[in-house]
Amino acid sequence: MPTDKLGIDKLVSGILASNKRAVAKAITILENDLPGAAVLLDQVFTKTGNAQLIGVTGPPGAGKSTLIEKITNHWLQEGKKIGIIAVDPSSPFTGGAILGDRIRMKTISSKKNVFIRSMATRGALGGLSPHIREAMQILDAAGMDKIIVETVGVGQSEIDIVKVADTVILVTVPEAGDDIQVIKSGIMEIGDVFVVNKADRPGANKMEILLKSMIHSNNENLTDKNVVKTVASESQGIDELIEVLDNHYHEFQVTGKLLKRKKALLELMLFDIIKNHFANKTLVKIKESDQFKNLLNKLAKREIEPYSALTELAEENQILAAILEGK
Amino acid sequence: MPTDKLGIDKLVSGILASNKRAVAKAITILENDLPGAAVLLDQVFTKTGNAQLIGVTGPPGAGKSTLIEKITNHWLQEGKKIGIIAVDPSSPFTGGAILGDRIRMKTISSKKNVFIRSMATRGALGGLSPHIREAMQILDAAGMDKIIVETVGVGQSEIDIVKVADTVILVTVPEAGDDIQVIKSGIMEIGDVFVVNKADRPGANKMEILLKSMIHSNNENLTDKNVVKTVASESQGIDELIEVLDNHYHEFQVTGKLLKRKKALLELMLFDIIKNHFANKTLVKIKESDQFKNLLNKLAKREIEPYSALTELAEENQILAAILEGK
Repeated sequence: MPTDKLGIDKLVSGILASNKRAVAKAITILENDLPGAAVLLDQVFTKTGNAQLIGVTGPPGAGKSTLIEKITNHWLQEGKKIGIIAVDPSSPFTGGAILGDRIRMKTISSKKNVFIRSMATRGALGGLSPHIREAMQILDAAGMDKIIVETVGVGQSEIDIVKVADTVILVTVPEAGDDIQVIKSGIMEIGDVFVVNKADRPGANKMEILLKSMIHSNNENLTDKNVVKTVASESQGIDELIEVLDNHYHEFQVTGKLLKRKKALLELMLFDIIKNHFANKTLVKIKESDQFKNLLNKLAKREIEPYSALTELAEENQILAAILEGK
Repeated sequence: MPTDKLGIDKLVSGILASNKRAVAKAITILENDLPGAAVLLDQVFTKTGNAQLIGVTGPPGAGKSTLIEKITNHWLQEGKKIGIIAVDPSSPFTGGAILGDRIRMKTISSKKNVFIRSMATRGALGGLSPHIREAMQILDAAGMDKIIVETVGVGQSEIDIVKVADTVILVTVPEAGDDIQVIKSGIMEIGDVFVVNKADRPGANKMEILLKSMIHSNNENLTDKNVVKTVASESQGIDELIEVLDNHYHEFQVTGKLLKRKKALLELMLFDIIKNHFANKTLVKIKESDQFKNLLNKLAKREIEPYSALTELAEENQILAAILEGK
């Protein structure tokens, strides 16, 4: 970039100075694929890698937002800077309920060392939107010590949170025991730390025992200590949870597991760039060609088979030919 | 294919003869990407395109399964063959509830002209699994007159149902009014036919009026007639719903909108094949290269930027170079 017509240099300076408006503007640029997005990410990259990335997931109504609010307040008192990304499932049915959560979290959003942003779940290629990872990078470069991503665990894409977090907190409630037993192996793969929230309700101890027994039989990386009971609305169990989080992060650093996760995240990042180029350029060119339109007509009339159509397309397109040959 | 070592020819004969076991086996081959999957799809392709593809979506508890059971029984009496695909969201939290629905629908699964199959939501590339579309093709080739795909509308991937159906039925309940008003434009894009089920509950008329008013202001393709009240458990409103479905399908055929949807579906099919090759061959080769592993190490140490890493990769890989150049 010889000159900086888009003002990216200035924006990067703002981000590195933890300026809230600069951070917000940067995330908007990334979220909407505005000009300068790629340069922006490249420029902040070497300033990232310092924050602890924490995913919080669980069913609707488990009290995730309240729990995040309490953890955040705890860390604020320690002088930490906290970034929070609230991932809204792009669903027409649960929209209403989730809006309520967001409003509730606004009680901490006005604080100086907290940055909160709501983002939509899904990218053009499905799964957790790459923009969520990108926003985490901006928050990381902006000097956030902790970056919390909250997702509602109601679909596979939301559960992809494991791929972008150093530590995943799975929040559940005493009543969820039956559901969890049905699909226990899945749950155990997702979480590093398990919270039984609303633990003043009946069944909390039973749920705690269930989770611990599942840990014993399913995940050799975890111990009983990774299960915590909280009553987030009353601030009960928060100190204990913080300690578990700190211990988990420390152990991850010492054993090299953290580096492994960080590399997986970087791999995902590179592949998303490649996949985006492929979908938005290569495939769009194919789609807009007359040959493709003719082949679609033939397919609609069942005059040819799909693979014959692809073979014909590949004759005119070297990239496609190479891909279909498995190169 | 010179010989038929995998028995695909025999399987195709079975499918074309509406043999339930052949259909089940074919879907299993597709679902697990077993050898012969591509040949199988190509061989049945010219026998497809005859079934009406119906998507049924809506929030959990709206009574979708019961409604599908009643519609199915109606069509069975007309001598139709019905294929049903129940899409299970791949979620660890809602697993339990959905299992119950599936068991309920088994009351019709034993009937001769009904084929029911449960499938998982999600493909390797996110969104609605391509295997669901593939299974629809098998059912189509097997002579099903109607193919119903039921998804739970709790995530974007589930809502992708619009991309594979000729007609989408959105099932809701009287109480859902508030949620729907918040996100009305999304809802209107999804549905062709709107059902207020459990219409013996308070608020049914209000919900009906709300949906009709939203239709007027949001979607010029629809009219009041596309909103139907039912009490599926009592078989009320089913005849009316069937009439609306028939009318919608007929109008779609006459106006050419159906052909447009069918072509969009075929486009999706071709692009999925290409994307799968790309993800499973081209990208895997890059991932396994020593160069890539070295670059990941450098990225983890923040010694280079992501785009520099991609540029280095592209020097050794012509396909990647072409893609990054936007070819």
